[in-house]
Amino acid sequence: MAFAHKSTISDKAYGAQNNERLEYLGDAVLGTIVAEYLFKKYPNGNEGFLTKMRSKIVQRKSLNTIGDKMGLDMLLSEYNNTRLSRSMLGNAVEALVGAVYLECGYSKTKRFVIRKILRSYINVHELEHFDDNYKSQLLEWCQKNGQTVSYKVLARYKFEKRDRFKVAVMIDGKKLATADDFNKKSAEQTASERAMHTLGIKGSKKKAASV
Amino acid sequence: MAFAHKSTISDKAYGAQNNERLEYLGDAVLGTIVAEYLFKKYPNGNEGFLTKMRSKIVQRKSLNTIGDKMGLDMLLSEYNNTRLSRSMLGNAVEALVGAVYLECGYSKTKRFVIRKILRSYINVHELEHFDDNYKSQLLEWCQKNGQTVSYKVLARYKFEKRDRFKVAVMIDGKKLATADDFNKKSAEQTASERAMHTLGIKGSKKKAASV
Repeated sequence: MAFAHKSTISDKAYGAQNNERLEYLGDAVLGTIVAEYLFKKYPNGNEGFLTKMRSKIVQRKSLNTIGDKMGLDMLLSEYNNTRLSRSMLGNAVEALVGAVYLECGYSKTKRFVIRKILRSYINVHELEHFDDNYKSQLLEWCQKNGQTVSYKVLARYKFEKRDRFKVAVMIDGKKLATADDFNKKSAEQTASERAMHTLGIKGSKKKAASV
Repeated sequence: MAFAHKSTISDKAYGAQNNERLEYLGDAVLGTIVAEYLFKKYPNGNEGFLTKMRSKIVQRKSLNTIGDKMGLDMLLSEYNNTRLSRSMLGNAVEALVGAVYLECGYSKTKRFVIRKILRSYINVHELEHFDDNYKSQLLEWCQKNGQTVSYKVLARYKFEKRDRFKVAVMIDGKKLATADDFNKKSAEQTASERAMHTLGIKGSKKKAASV
């Protein structure tokens, strides 16, 4: 059930057998396992640092990459006929964790997540130094170089019944890159990352504070 | 440690012994326990319904009320010298759950949370029908009565180093109620709730959809 997308099995019927409920459960379970893992790994890390690290691991983009590396696309293709989207991969990771939890309980799921997900696909030490706030990095670069940065919503449209935004990042009033997302801030982040790439700015690897 | 506020024990030193780390852990553990509790209680509830129900239970305001009913103010006063704020109560609930988890593990914490928190202080069936979106309720009332509603940020200031907003809700351009919060949307919700009270509008008890 963890790999059955709602387009394959409608959730309108009672007792929906698609992966959305498992995804809801797995999202929580995964979040707690990662929270505890970091809590113990960084006995001196403060709450702000731990929260930021956790969000770097469980954010959509990161889960999509994990699902990709785990080869979940093969399983998703097998169980569904729809075109696969990136976000289906991350959702499947969550649903898988939810399914393992229901079958095996918390301790075994914790072992599974730590061994088969965290240690296999996440470099925690690299994440410590990884600054994923591209907006602030781009702003810093612009301030250093006497340029201005601004963001513009080019379009707001419906996609799969949800509002989606097309956003542009402008340097000195000139459009440098665009990005689409359901969330305006996320679109701005992606557009900023693309603009940095175009400008040849390397992402700063700041030492994470307060560890 | 669950009741030691950071103002009592600074987190600047390594190995901070205040309750912020426990709060971070407990927030995750509590979220998972509530997620699973609802998952099993509503075998036909879809992901959207479950997510909404969960947020009604673990939202700040609700945790503050639970902490209050549990009498945590007594314990907080004993361990700290600062003036108690409402949010310290909710944070202490989370930190307590984090502490119980570290001492007793997941299963025992689950039993503790379900018996001593959920069943004691939360009426899940009432929550099903409870519509906590005061902005939309006020808007609906205004549309029925041919009046317009708008929101105005009266002030933005720093409180405990964080941005805080004072927001007013205006009916037909007349200021009806104000509220302060760190989050603009939350301030608008509270102001709307107050305006509804002033206008004598009873909160609608909509049947929650999709169960």
